[in-house]
Amino acid sequence: MSVADGLQALRRLNADDLGFAQIDHHRAWRQAMPEVVYCEGKTVEQAAAILLRQAAVSTGPLLGTRANPALYDRIGHQGYDFEYVEEARLVVLRRGVPAPVGQVLAVSAGTADGPVLREAEVTAELMGAKVERLVDVGVAGLHRLLGHLDALYAARVVIVAAGMDGALPSVVAGLVDAPVIALPTSVGYGASLHGISALLTMLNSCAAGIGVVNIDNGFGAGYLAALINRGGVE
Amino acid sequence: MSVADGLQALRRLNADDLGFAQIDHHRAWRQAMPEVVYCEGKTVEQAAAILLRQAAVSTGPLLGTRANPALYDRIGHQGYDFEYVEEARLVVLRRGVPAPVGQVLAVSAGTADGPVLREAEVTAELMGAKVERLVDVGVAGLHRLLGHLDALYAARVVIVAAGMDGALPSVVAGLVDAPVIALPTSVGYGASLHGISALLTMLNSCAAGIGVVNIDNGFGAGYLAALINRGGVE
Amino acid sequence: MSVADGLQALRRLNADDLGFAQIDHHRAWRQAMPEVVYCEGKTVEQAAAILLRQAAVSTGPLLGTRANPALYDRIGHQGYDFEYVEEARLVVLRRGVPAPVGQVLAVSAGTADGPVLREAEVTAELMGAKVERLVDVGVAGLHRLLGHLDALYAARVVIVAAGMDGALPSVVAGLVDAPVIALPTSVGYGASLHGISALLTMLNSCAAGIGVVNIDNGFGAGYLAALINRGGVE
Amino acid sequence: MSVADGLQALRRLNADDLGFAQIDHHRAWRQAMPEVVYCEGKTVEQAAAILLRQAAVSTGPLLGTRANPALYDRIGHQGYDFEYVEEARLVVLRRGVPAPVGQVLAVSAGTADGPVLREAEVTAELMGAKVERLVDVGVAGLHRLLGHLDALYAARVVIVAAGMDGALPSVVAGLVDAPVIALPTSVGYGASLHGISALLTMLNSCAAGIGVVNIDNGFGAGYLAALINRGGVE
Amino acid sequence: MSVADGLQALRRLNADDLGFAQIDHHRAWRQAMPEVVYCEGKTVEQAAAILLRQAAVSTGPLLGTRANPALYDRIGHQGYDFEYVEEARLVVLRRGVPAPVGQVLAVSAGTADGPVLREAEVTAELMGAKVERLVDVGVAGLHRLLGHLDALYAARVVIVAAGMDGALPSVVAGLVDAPVIALPTSVGYGASLHGISALLTMLNSCAAGIGVVNIDNGFGAGYLAALINRGGVE
Amino acid sequence: MSVADGLQALRRLNADDLGFAQIDHHRAWRQAMPEVVYCEGKTVEQAAAILLRQAAVSTGPLLGTRANPALYDRIGHQGYDFEYVEEARLVVLRRGVPAPVGQVLAVSAGTADGPVLREAEVTAELMGAKVERLVDVGVAGLHRLLGHLDALYAARVVIVAAGMDGALPSVVAGLVDAPVIALPTSVGYGASLHGISALLTMLNSCAAGIGVVNIDNGFGAGYLAALINRGGVE
Amino acid sequence: MSVADGLQALRRLNADDLGFAQIDHHRAWRQAMPEVVYCEGKTVEQAAAILLRQAAVSTGPLLGTRANPALYDRIGHQGYDFEYVEEARLVVLRRGVPAPVGQVLAVSAGTADGPVLREAEVTAELMGAKVERLVDVGVAGLHRLLGHLDALYAARVVIVAAGMDGALPSVVAGLVDAPVIALPTSVGYGASLHGISALLTMLNSCAAGIGVVNIDNGFGAGYLAALINRGGVE
Amino acid sequence: MSVADGLQALRRLNADDLGFAQIDHHRAWRQAMPEVVYCEGKTVEQAAAILLRQAAVSTGPLLGTRANPALYDRIGHQGYDFEYVEEARLVVLRRGVPAPVGQVLAVSAGTADGPVLREAEVTAELMGAKVERLVDVGVAGLHRLLGHLDALYAARVVIVAAGMDGALPSVVAGLVDAPVIALPTSVGYGASLHGISALLTMLNSCAAGIGVVNIDNGFGAGYLAALINRGGVE
Repeated sequence: MSVADGLQALRRLNADDLGFAQIDHHRAWRQAMPEVVYCEGKTVEQAAAILLRQAAVSTGPLLGTRANPALYDRIGHQGYDFEYVEEARLVVLRRGVPAPVGQVLAVSAGTADGPVLREAEVTAELMGAKVERLVDVGVAGLHRLLGHLDALYAARVVIVAAGMDGALPSVVAGLVDAPVIALPTSVGYGASLHGISALLTMLNSCAAGIGVVNIDNGFGAGYLAALINRGGVE
Repeated sequence: MSVADGLQALRRLNADDLGFAQIDHHRAWRQAMPEVVYCEGKTVEQAAAILLRQAAVSTGPLLGTRANPALYDRIGHQGYDFEYVEEARLVVLRRGVPAPVGQVLAVSAGTADGPVLREAEVTAELMGAKVERLVDVGVAGLHRLLGHLDALYAARVVIVAAGMDGALPSVVAGLVDAPVIALPTSVGYGASLHGISALLTMLNSCAAGIGVVNIDNGFGAGYLAALINRGGVE
Repeated sequence: MSVADGLQALRRLNADDLGFAQIDHHRAWRQAMPEVVYCEGKTVEQAAAILLRQAAVSTGPLLGTRANPALYDRIGHQGYDFEYVEEARLVVLRRGVPAPVGQVLAVSAGTADGPVLREAEVTAELMGAKVERLVDVGVAGLHRLLGHLDALYAARVVIVAAGMDGALPSVVAGLVDAPVIALPTSVGYGASLHGISALLTMLNSCAAGIGVVNIDNGFGAGYLAALINRGGVE
Repeated sequence: MSVADGLQALRRLNADDLGFAQIDHHRAWRQAMPEVVYCEGKTVEQAAAILLRQAAVSTGPLLGTRANPALYDRIGHQGYDFEYVEEARLVVLRRGVPAPVGQVLAVSAGTADGPVLREAEVTAELMGAKVERLVDVGVAGLHRLLGHLDALYAARVVIVAAGMDGALPSVVAGLVDAPVIALPTSVGYGASLHGISALLTMLNSCAAGIGVVNIDNGFGAGYLAALINRGGVE
Repeated sequence: MSVADGLQALRRLNADDLGFAQIDHHRAWRQAMPEVVYCEGKTVEQAAAILLRQAAVSTGPLLGTRANPALYDRIGHQGYDFEYVEEARLVVLRRGVPAPVGQVLAVSAGTADGPVLREAEVTAELMGAKVERLVDVGVAGLHRLLGHLDALYAARVVIVAAGMDGALPSVVAGLVDAPVIALPTSVGYGASLHGISALLTMLNSCAAGIGVVNIDNGFGAGYLAALINRGGVE
Repeated sequence: MSVADGLQALRRLNADDLGFAQIDHHRAWRQAMPEVVYCEGKTVEQAAAILLRQAAVSTGPLLGTRANPALYDRIGHQGYDFEYVEEARLVVLRRGVPAPVGQVLAVSAGTADGPVLREAEVTAELMGAKVERLVDVGVAGLHRLLGHLDALYAARVVIVAAGMDGALPSVVAGLVDAPVIALPTSVGYGASLHGISALLTMLNSCAAGIGVVNIDNGFGAGYLAALINRGGVE
Repeated sequence: MSVADGLQALRRLNADDLGFAQIDHHRAWRQAMPEVVYCEGKTVEQAAAILLRQAAVSTGPLLGTRANPALYDRIGHQGYDFEYVEEARLVVLRRGVPAPVGQVLAVSAGTADGPVLREAEVTAELMGAKVERLVDVGVAGLHRLLGHLDALYAARVVIVAAGMDGALPSVVAGLVDAPVIALPTSVGYGASLHGISALLTMLNSCAAGIGVVNIDNGFGAGYLAALINRGGVE
Repeated sequence: MSVADGLQALRRLNADDLGFAQIDHHRAWRQAMPEVVYCEGKTVEQAAAILLRQAAVSTGPLLGTRANPALYDRIGHQGYDFEYVEEARLVVLRRGVPAPVGQVLAVSAGTADGPVLREAEVTAELMGAKVERLVDVGVAGLHRLLGHLDALYAARVVIVAAGMDGALPSVVAGLVDAPVIALPTSVGYGASLHGISALLTMLNSCAAGIGVVNIDNGFGAGYLAALINRGGVE
């Protein structure tokens, strides 16, 4: 393929310019992927304008991450069935979601990792993944995890959220043959360094088959899991 | 599944005790995965003993990472067809490797990322992946990358190795819908902090669909890629 | 030039002593540069006193950065046409601004980088630069950027603001031959380390022709851009 | 007890002044503890002089840590039965060692952690502890650890050495009720940061009952283990 | 012991599933240890549900750490004698606490270290340790410490809490032969880095016999102290 | 001097035990030094109790640092002439202050460094130093500094407070022959890392004759300056 | 300009594929810029092949940075007039260099910054800049700098190299109105952190008009200076 | 004093330009201070040229720090009585050294801190200070320090060198009323971070009266001590 052809391939793309933001619709149109807005750092007005524009132009699912309740108040009653997943601070428009396929297992080390894990779960579900969850099975009580080996073995991809020592992904990856997405959380204090400790643990895992995402990046973990899961069921 | 059943599932496992190391064969037996030895920090004697034991007991491929030439000298003529991939410091025994399937694309930002990328390629190949490569296409000269969009679109999973600014995975993940494995390298100087800069860039990518591995961890990237690739072709 | 002559050259300078601050007017007098007050860490009283003194003594533009609304309330109705640029937290007195010359292109990777970019734009404008903007064109969607190559090619200097992975300056510097001022922002979370990740990315850029300023230092980027732009149009 | 009495208690102490070093004998005299010399940063001459003085004045065991072979060459044939534990870089004089009591279990995650673990073992043995070892049982292959629960349950104190992800102490501490001494090693690369990653993991362990020592501080782990073990058998 | 036997040993364990948390009771049942809930990151509803379930199912002491007053309000009048230790942010149910044995000495360098030290004391007491305290005896005024040598000598284990320079554990460990648990606190400012400075000091202590816990981890220090203390009095 | 004599020398010391704090009076009694309380991390009750006890027992000056207004409200009307220096958050009781001698010059780079510098000035004054000040003379406008060479040359010791780049102490130390106390402040943003940048600059000064204190540690700088100043005038 | 047009603009570009490297010639062809090879991390064979290919295909200047003598040995006698600038580890082919214009002033704080500054000088010269130098004028002896104000005032752009405290760019930028490129070097020890201290100082400069490059990145500083200088003389 | 006068004061200064270095003689001429060359990063030729020029032009003491033996070989027999202090890597020309006055006490925590302490001692001696030393008196064995209280009390200024935990300056500053110069060394391993741990400890000292210098900066500590000592005896 020549550079000219490569450029030709990019030519189909077109951005929707709101002045303060450029919205891409092509990925959603092509692949029934959700359109996603990272709301932190945007004003409520900006985030609302983007989401409503997407709601009007696209027909697939929408996802606003790190959304505060004020955003939901602004867009909740504008003719679209937005819902607010408070625990995970998500604004979601569940429409055009593919029927769930495959198996993504979402695992957390502790209860406090729940909100981040939930963000991952919702993201993966919007992208058509069947998602199961297994929570509070950290390595300090191995029997909690070992009692669910069947769920671990059944997954096409496993998301493992953990803060503090971040040790759970290593243990899980040692048990399964599926890819493991390690999701560090900022749960902890002191030398946890707001999640840096868990992140480092996961990057240094002595078990193979692990890909790591940013601290508290439930969206990224869910998105990657859904991509892998989709590949596995095509 | 009860804890008892879970434990029962683990019971099949058995380690081969060399005194200074416990060798697992079960994964290799079950899945035609290579047995892998991380050689750094082990004496040549220790690494050689482990690899020769594996060569004798298993029938599949073997891989020794971060191996120096002295190790190869020790095991190269012991009746097994070990080869030494000098660029990537790998000792490899290519036997029982499955026929290549799927498509893993291995991409590097610069020539100096070559050895780490090679480690990833060999690893993925030993696990049965078909691997293509695209080198020296860093973001400072976008046209080099854009001339190979067809290769990018054809991949089931893409490995992207980059040092310095580590920006390439973000660009690649913005172009493809396949999972991207970001592989930071220690190429660079000064504020590259031996690869920490590239690692942080990749963790903070504004593109979705990226899983990150440790700095210079070509093995980990190749292993994860092969797992994902395998899922996509089953 | 001897030391004596050097000292002689400095002799013209004179500071205006407010007790808690020494105000320099010479640069403004000599070059129609704005006088600038960094307001953070100063009390409203201190910042107001400095700005009002400058307003009275100088005749050129004034700029108060990181100014809160209370400061504007204090000085907004004291006989000078101060305005408050809320988005960028600037207090501005637009008087004696030279007619805009040259071309500074202000680019942002995402909508959330807007306030920092705005600080850069206003600063450059006060110093006589013609400024254009191009927002939300981060590397995860290259076509957004590639659709504006003409704007990139037309600039005498380009400011590129980006948080998270901070990858955009590398891509831009690879496309243009003008100097690029990389402006990292604190947009992001987790391993973005409040902008450190973007900063490191920019310092390690594999593209040449980039100068980096402090995180969120829109003022510094705009000031440097205007200096370079001025040089290019003399 | 008054300050005067406190001072009186300290009065018995006396240091042996070599000019460049002050040697304490009182602890050895009182408690049959080994006298210990940290040899790094000392010249061979200095370390040799200290050890030979101790050999002459004391009657109990001596330990030189981080000792190079040149030191052993210097003191090996001076009339004392010094031995050199090459793997752990220790110079040891095993005399007056108490009969072994209690049970210290020394565990390592990988083969490369061996030298540091050995330093801990020898130290604890010199202080009268009975020591058992369990090596290469990292969390990536849990069955290797679970096959030795009896050894874990039998220990009065457990030392767990691990590099890379440093996850093993968390798992061990979740299985036993004895105190666990977490011993991070510098085994690893990239984001292991020369052992910082393992250290942080251990400090943030979600399991209780863990005390952490410095990276590669096998001596410190062994010393603390022996103190705890001794307390448990008095 | 075979793997099968090991698994058998784990089979007795059973977790109590609340949906968002898995509660272990076995350790409490077996050893009269307190059941502990780390409340930070959990909603008041979650923490309350866990504690009340534990209160109903177990018969021993309960401990909720990092608990806010709202949690106490929720569970304080539900039929159990919970108390709130405000200084240390603990919710405690003192029932079934063993008669105090041994001697744990809890020492602080300054008054501001008090809350963290209190967390350690209460934890150790709930686990059956006799605890004494010695506060505000930092190294800047040695005579304050030297006036209490008898208390130091009498302890089976010493907890030393210190922020800022974190130097006290080194001095204490040089005076006693008992194990010392170094407990860094986040007391300080500037280069104290929220306790990192004290933590590093303690890890690098030139005195032997020290195990370190996480910054502000009073619970962990108290728990480890009680384990060691128990070993010493069996 | 024997250890016994050394202990004897310490015997005169006596601490005043409040339960949560041990108060030393001996230094004040011996040297007319102020008694100092670091109030951060102490409750208002604790800080008030300590200061009032000192006020009652001692006859010299008292200083409470990092004191909030609530503390002053508590002790302001208890029969002692406490004053509150709001800018520097100090509670001060100026009694028994020696007549000012010597010359301490307190210099700041910017207006925002004022509060920290004030803390240093008040501290030095309470210890009997004559203090002059020179503010807002940062290196970006050298002429501001060069206009006060006479003040610089007249000082027995110079305190230099600076945030951001922290460059002023290097310049000052290059101009004077008196000792310079470098006082980094947390003024700045982004890569200033809350004062770490200024601190590092000062530690790495290419000028000799500089001693550095902790970030924002005005008290420490003033105390050290007064000690040095006192030595110079005895 | 549409995306299609943008792509069209990129179509002219073409890379020269060596298998392990993609060489761009277009920038050299278009602008008489040097082609540059970063040699570190490449084998001598790779670097030599790239440089020789460039020498054959292009007609302008070539620059190999971080080149060791072995590379020069390989290419020095292949028919091109390569020279080796040992101090700066540069391989240079000075052909087709434009006549020098403008004025770049290259300044160093100390003698040890010389090699990095030399790299900047040679780079700028190859790009057609007239370069003057001023060395060893660090801030600890201001008069050394103040004796050269005329050189400072005459520059269109100033490069300032400094290690240790990195304070010189702040002072220079306070004296001139031209853009200042701050070039931190790894000169120093201890808390200089291999140049991080100087880098931070420069990023936090209290003087405006400064752009910072990576530690020891003389090439980047020279390149940026030449771009700015060129703009100023067009 | 006006700016003009200030400049006049600087006019007397004159640098001696060697091409790669600017030598200041004025300080030596004015105050019998040694001229100092930091040799690291300079070639042997450069360092030799500077020292020989100084030897020829000045009449006072000379000091070359971080000098290797090759430098001494080059200048040792050129007609000046240079000596080489190998332990501290100093080249010294002891001429015109003032008669020793005052009392500087140089203290080290351990034997390995010796070379750095020696650098401080020689520096202070060259500047006319009477220096005493007290070595290997770290806080792990307090009685070693307490046996020398008389030496501590007699000093006008105390230098305290310590690596690892860096705790000794806090203890010393708590015992004396003289200024304490804390000199962190890179002695240690693991979490000592090449001296960062000791440095942080000293900056966070809970004792007042401490100024800190860079890691291993014996020269800086000695210089500052001599300045303070001189002030105290004028």
